[in-house]
Amino acid sequence: MKNMKLALIQQQCGADKEQNLRSTCVQIEQAAQSGANVVVLVELHSGLYFCQHQDTACFNQAETIPGPTTEILAQAARDNQVVVVASLFEKRAPGLYHNTAVVFETDGSIAGIYRKMHIPDDPGYNEKFYFTPGDLGFNPIKTSAGVLGVMVCWDQWYPEAARLMTLAGAEVLIYPTAIGWDPDDSKTEQQRQLDAWHTIQRSHAIANGIHIAAANRIGFEPDPSGHTHGAQFWGNSFIAGPQGEILAHASADKAEIISAGIDLQRTEETRRIWPFLRDRRIDAYAELTKRFRL
Amino acid sequence: MKNMKLALIQQQCGADKEQNLRSTCVQIEQAAQSGANVVVLVELHSGLYFCQHQDTACFNQAETIPGPTTEILAQAARDNQVVVVASLFEKRAPGLYHNTAVVFETDGSIAGIYRKMHIPDDPGYNEKFYFTPGDLGFNPIKTSAGVLGVMVCWDQWYPEAARLMTLAGAEVLIYPTAIGWDPDDSKTEQQRQLDAWHTIQRSHAIANGIHIAAANRIGFEPDPSGHTHGAQFWGNSFIAGPQGEILAHASADKAEIISAGIDLQRTEETRRIWPFLRDRRIDAYAELTKRFRL
Repeated sequence: MKNMKLALIQQQCGADKEQNLRSTCVQIEQAAQSGANVVVLVELHSGLYFCQHQDTACFNQAETIPGPTTEILAQAARDNQVVVVASLFEKRAPGLYHNTAVVFETDGSIAGIYRKMHIPDDPGYNEKFYFTPGDLGFNPIKTSAGVLGVMVCWDQWYPEAARLMTLAGAEVLIYPTAIGWDPDDSKTEQQRQLDAWHTIQRSHAIANGIHIAAANRIGFEPDPSGHTHGAQFWGNSFIAGPQGEILAHASADKAEIISAGIDLQRTEETRRIWPFLRDRRIDAYAELTKRFRL
Repeated sequence: MKNMKLALIQQQCGADKEQNLRSTCVQIEQAAQSGANVVVLVELHSGLYFCQHQDTACFNQAETIPGPTTEILAQAARDNQVVVVASLFEKRAPGLYHNTAVVFETDGSIAGIYRKMHIPDDPGYNEKFYFTPGDLGFNPIKTSAGVLGVMVCWDQWYPEAARLMTLAGAEVLIYPTAIGWDPDDSKTEQQRQLDAWHTIQRSHAIANGIHIAAANRIGFEPDPSGHTHGAQFWGNSFIAGPQGEILAHASADKAEIISAGIDLQRTEETRRIWPFLRDRRIDAYAELTKRFRL
């Protein structure tokens, strides 16, 4: 049985790409030195969360994969002999961009990529402007440390995505994320949203008998357009076990590295007492591919 | 916009069917008098949870629908002018039995039935011995009080079921339940199970922007076979709103009626800020009908 120790790097990201990547690489090293063999970064960690506004100049931030940023991250993976789950703004072709997770092997090679499938679009999160929905489906990425069901942010809210990754053999579900509070919302609403975010992801762990991990950014980022009052990214990165139990949990506002072991024996045992996969009514699920049934 | 007030009757059930039904009818009246227009009963409320053991004599407890028990419940619905969600051991034909929810209109007519689709089977819950899996699919039941997405117990653990009900226009998800602790489990494990049970159901509310309600039984019931140390049904019936927020929550061990309003405007508003239905990747979900993808 593989022995996976997962670390999440909860960080604030600024406008300076080089500085962000330097800081990230230092933290990858720290995580590796504390025993992690898989290190997960937050969504779009090499810059500000530019989707708060719509500006064609932001497409300049995108890079090909491989490209300069993957070279730097590959080096960090190789130097520290860890698997790294990164998140980049991918330039695939002129006018064709994705929000893409890249998984690096311990030798710095690219083990696989995942292009964000579910794309949000709401005030402060104009992602449909920037990101073409992924076309690689829900397929986990095999690494020397284990089979990683890597998805990105908005995918978190979709039980279908978690299920498909599980059915394809994922050993852990991993979500780089950038989610925050709208400063205009009441404290009550903010708390409800954070709680819902934890709850839906813990439920994927439960429904599938699998560990899950979400790495979120922190810090306030103003909205350059002035249309909203900006985003207060809420941190709260966490790792949960296959009954949804919290194994590690970060603060709302501090840069920190949290980690936990991913014990596949727990998955085995949990699925024996809660054999949900056994009883799925696959004969009755066909209409899940419908937009609505009325 | 309809005005639905849902009441859950959390109760202990004994071996005496007549006595159980008398007690149930009194509580339906109480719930109606306190303003509920939909009253939900626990799973298999007319008797003990006989699935702890396998005994062919238990099939004698099954009844046709309609039958003597539905007559009594229909009368209670009519007398109190409420919609009633009941749960019965259905005899459909010799050798063909279901775990069936029956929804009564305020005039006592049967608005519809739902046959439990996902059937558990584990020590103390020998349901595959008794219940043929449902063949009616996931279709909500229209009533004068609203469109009810009625499912039963083990269905609670399946996001597919909640989604299909939502896509078919359910306005609230409702689960009659009989779930309890194994006295041999540690307190920590018991707490994790209860928490997971709340979490997975609250997640259906979140994923679908819909209210959910689960009515569970209470009390200890010994295992007639002696194979286990019986079941301590854990109560904790609850109603949650479309962000998974708890609106009403019962104790672990007391017979009680809890209720909450089902505000469809909340569904409308929640789905506007969290438009998960908009972004489902129905082009990429076909393999949800597979048992496993490897």
